[in-house]
Amino acid sequence: MTTHLDSLNAAPAEDFAGFVGSLIPGAAFLGERAASARPFATVSALHAALMAALMAASPEEQRALLAAHPEPTAEDAAGLDPLAAAAEAEAFARGLAAYRERFGFPFLICAERQTIDAVLDALAARLAGEPAAERAASLGEFGHIVRLRLARAVEGPGLPPSTGRLSTHVLDTHGGRPAAGVALRLYAVGRAGRRLLDSRTTNADGRTDAPLLAGAPLRAGRYEIEFDIGPYFRGRVDGAVRNLFLETVPIRFGIDEPEGHYHVAMIATPWSYTVYRGS
Amino acid sequence: MTTHLDSLNAAPAEDFAGFVGSLIPGAAFLGERAASARPFATVSALHAALMAALMAASPEEQRALLAAHPEPTAEDAAGLDPLAAAAEAEAFARGLAAYRERFGFPFLICAERQTIDAVLDALAARLAGEPAAERAASLGEFGHIVRLRLARAVEGPGLPPSTGRLSTHVLDTHGGRPAAGVALRLYAVGRAGRRLLDSRTTNADGRTDAPLLAGAPLRAGRYEIEFDIGPYFRGRVDGAVRNLFLETVPIRFGIDEPEGHYHVAMIATPWSYTVYRGS
Amino acid sequence: MTTHLDSLNAAPAEDFAGFVGSLIPGAAFLGERAASARPFATVSALHAALMAALMAASPEEQRALLAAHPEPTAEDAAGLDPLAAAAEAEAFARGLAAYRERFGFPFLICAERQTIDAVLDALAARLAGEPAAERAASLGEFGHIVRLRLARAVEGPGLPPSTGRLSTHVLDTHGGRPAAGVALRLYAVGRAGRRLLDSRTTNADGRTDAPLLAGAPLRAGRYEIEFDIGPYFRGRVDGAVRNLFLETVPIRFGIDEPEGHYHVAMIATPWSYTVYRGS
Amino acid sequence: MTTHLDSLNAAPAEDFAGFVGSLIPGAAFLGERAASARPFATVSALHAALMAALMAASPEEQRALLAAHPEPTAEDAAGLDPLAAAAEAEAFARGLAAYRERFGFPFLICAERQTIDAVLDALAARLAGEPAAERAASLGEFGHIVRLRLARAVEGPGLPPSTGRLSTHVLDTHGGRPAAGVALRLYAVGRAGRRLLDSRTTNADGRTDAPLLAGAPLRAGRYEIEFDIGPYFRGRVDGAVRNLFLETVPIRFGIDEPEGHYHVAMIATPWSYTVYRGS
Repeated sequence: MTTHLDSLNAAPAEDFAGFVGSLIPGAAFLGERAASARPFATVSALHAALMAALMAASPEEQRALLAAHPEPTAEDAAGLDPLAAAAEAEAFARGLAAYRERFGFPFLICAERQTIDAVLDALAARLAGEPAAERAASLGEFGHIVRLRLARAVEGPGLPPSTGRLSTHVLDTHGGRPAAGVALRLYAVGRAGRRLLDSRTTNADGRTDAPLLAGAPLRAGRYEIEFDIGPYFRGRVDGAVRNLFLETVPIRFGIDEPEGHYHVAMIATPWSYTVYRGS
Repeated sequence: MTTHLDSLNAAPAEDFAGFVGSLIPGAAFLGERAASARPFATVSALHAALMAALMAASPEEQRALLAAHPEPTAEDAAGLDPLAAAAEAEAFARGLAAYRERFGFPFLICAERQTIDAVLDALAARLAGEPAAERAASLGEFGHIVRLRLARAVEGPGLPPSTGRLSTHVLDTHGGRPAAGVALRLYAVGRAGRRLLDSRTTNADGRTDAPLLAGAPLRAGRYEIEFDIGPYFRGRVDGAVRNLFLETVPIRFGIDEPEGHYHVAMIATPWSYTVYRGS
Repeated sequence: MTTHLDSLNAAPAEDFAGFVGSLIPGAAFLGERAASARPFATVSALHAALMAALMAASPEEQRALLAAHPEPTAEDAAGLDPLAAAAEAEAFARGLAAYRERFGFPFLICAERQTIDAVLDALAARLAGEPAAERAASLGEFGHIVRLRLARAVEGPGLPPSTGRLSTHVLDTHGGRPAAGVALRLYAVGRAGRRLLDSRTTNADGRTDAPLLAGAPLRAGRYEIEFDIGPYFRGRVDGAVRNLFLETVPIRFGIDEPEGHYHVAMIATPWSYTVYRGS
Repeated sequence: MTTHLDSLNAAPAEDFAGFVGSLIPGAAFLGERAASARPFATVSALHAALMAALMAASPEEQRALLAAHPEPTAEDAAGLDPLAAAAEAEAFARGLAAYRERFGFPFLICAERQTIDAVLDALAARLAGEPAAERAASLGEFGHIVRLRLARAVEGPGLPPSTGRLSTHVLDTHGGRPAAGVALRLYAVGRAGRRLLDSRTTNADGRTDAPLLAGAPLRAGRYEIEFDIGPYFRGRVDGAVRNLFLETVPIRFGIDEPEGHYHVAMIATPWSYTVYRGS
């Protein structure tokens, strides 16, 4: 169920505030204060107005609003291997408690923009930070949460970015053509090892039919794609070779912009490959 | 203790045969038959003459000589992780027994030219082979054993190859210079996971002071080098980036020629790298 | 003015033959013979039927039809530098006369699929050929001519390919982004030097807004693109450098499939570049 | 005829000054002033002492010494195409006269570290400079001249650098080996076109037997190497291809450090190549 921006622009101030409160528990007062800035030409402008109202709010109001947001759970960083999660759950809970004790408010992060390892890294880093910086970081994360909710709940022009994209492409410069039929596997790489996210095969253009990841923010963190280059080239090198120079080629890379486009491309021969962030 | 080729050329035929028998148990008769072909101009020619005598020997003589060579043990494929070896030892023993039963002679392989995984692969592949091909494969492996022993026991011109070499080189084409101070780790990659063989750091020329592997045959099999590219480039990308695009770059490759030179080179920037078998 | 395939399928046989004759002077008889094969599901099928009728025609009919096609002129290989053409025009005329004398029919080539240099190369190569091979080559070229004329004169499903495409892309792996604002120049490269075809600048995605060549067959021959990489990177290397390592990067390449897609891509840093035929 | 540093260290001050004057006309007074700093442990220390004496000399002494050095001639930038030189000689003479008029002293440059085009570029750039900067530039160039003369005339430890080196390497990652037998040509690239400096063929290791340039400073300027990749790969692509994708591959690059090592390497397949400054 989405609401159109036009309706929000035309609604009584009270209803507009109610909509904001329904989207973000406790934030109706931001809607009240931003209502007079309507009409908004774009959804991004609506987002900016709510964030401006948040920045202008009193420290107590900010603190109360942010504290109302639930702390992240291992489940937020979805798809995690249950065993690894269990092993780390206790340490995670201890970290969250230490954070609350140190800063007097809970750890706030837009968990769907992070792998569980990135959440753990952020918690460790932010535990060592200064209170003022932490308040700013929390506001920034809150802004991500509001942005994603608006992008999904409101229709209209100028939607703020709410998705990223990971794509790949394999070129065969031994034969001078896209490398078709190359099996590949995408993994999330964390402290506890790596976890298979998807398996694909390249099409006639050396790409996958659909992006490897799309339709949601890319979780910041580390990833690996394994390409089965050996089977692709096997017929083209000396048949007596038992151990091909290149068999499975792993490409390990980081994602840092959840709403970005990461094109991880490879140009391969049986004896060499080039990896680059393309476009 | 090495013997000079000149001494072997000048020795009484009986002593020459004795030397051969001391080098390869049961092979003195090859020395007797090759003695009249002396003097040998090179150690390689001596090796060739012994192999020619072996090829000309009767099937019974060949079989007896090859059977006298001990079967490989997991320890021959040295340096293996003891736990992994234990886990596989039983399966290995069963494979060796199956081979003896099928062909009537023990499995012969020049184990120091193989990783343990390559030995296991070879055993599995050869168990499925034909008797005639197996006899030929055993003679070929025996030839490798004789060659390595001669190369180490005899001094003189024309030594046959008995060592391989693995080297690396990292170039930084972001800065236009060799990448100095890059930490790297070499692993053997097998069924049971990977095992650390060595850790190094690149010098001012982007190379390691000594080859990664040298002085012995390279064990055929699969390897991985991990390069810590992230720390090398960190100062040169936006400081706000938490997840660098390239942090640890793994290069996984196969070695198939134990006496070859494998130069595994990398050209890197913070956003791309090229890997190739160089020279 | 195009005719729809449906109209050709429905027309009286006489009118269909007339259409073929209007398209290719002297070829109405091919239309007569192919008329009974109607209706054609695709324009490609119509092309195939006309070529089948040509193959089945008598040698005299073939010869008369092909001889009716005008010999190529330097102007056919359009856009040629007038001075270079003048310098070569006499040699070209001598070659055409020699060809007629040797084979008894004029030199036939689909000139718009060739650079002038490729026409000259083909004339030189074919002058040395055998009569039977020359007749086959002429029929093949005639087939290209008919195909291009059909593709332009007929509307309908299954149009045969009549255009190629040349595109480019420049990636900056020093900065990890497309290289925007890189000036580039496309040249045709021939015996008499090179001739500027077009100048462009890369857009925000590192590509040109429109393909470098499109909408017609790519003329087979040799080309060069010069990329002004030096100005793009200048601010990022030591200011004291007078002679940058890379200033203008020339990429010289051949086109051999006039109806193909040639994507000539470059990945560059101030100290390295990778060129490849992409997709 | 070289003199050993030990002899210069042990000689009477007068003789030492005489040696300096014989090396650099008019500079005996620098030798007189530097004599008391003897003994010099290295030739580089001797060079530094002479330059220190020059910096400490009066403006009139400096000016007189520098003015005694002949202006560059087109011939200094050796090997130039005589016709091109003739075409530019007049403009060059005008530039030198304008420089003298503007600054009151002749244009000084260590011409053997420059191509003729680099000399012309430097003249144009320095004509637009400020007098103080020009005096500094002249002293810097004079230092290069003194350094090269010392390096050639004196034997002993710590010789200052007086040579550069240009080398190349071609790797074939289609076949996984060095590219042997590749013909290549080195050109100097200037305003008036390019001039062939040398032709070579790669050896079994994909390198040239001797460096492309060595034994003297590399003349700063722009260069091009053409590699005949097409003939090397021809047998490995479809025989029907008339226009190979890669035939002659030009690599155009700049040299900016005359005493540096430029390793211009290429990794090639029939469909791609990577060029980089190696080490």
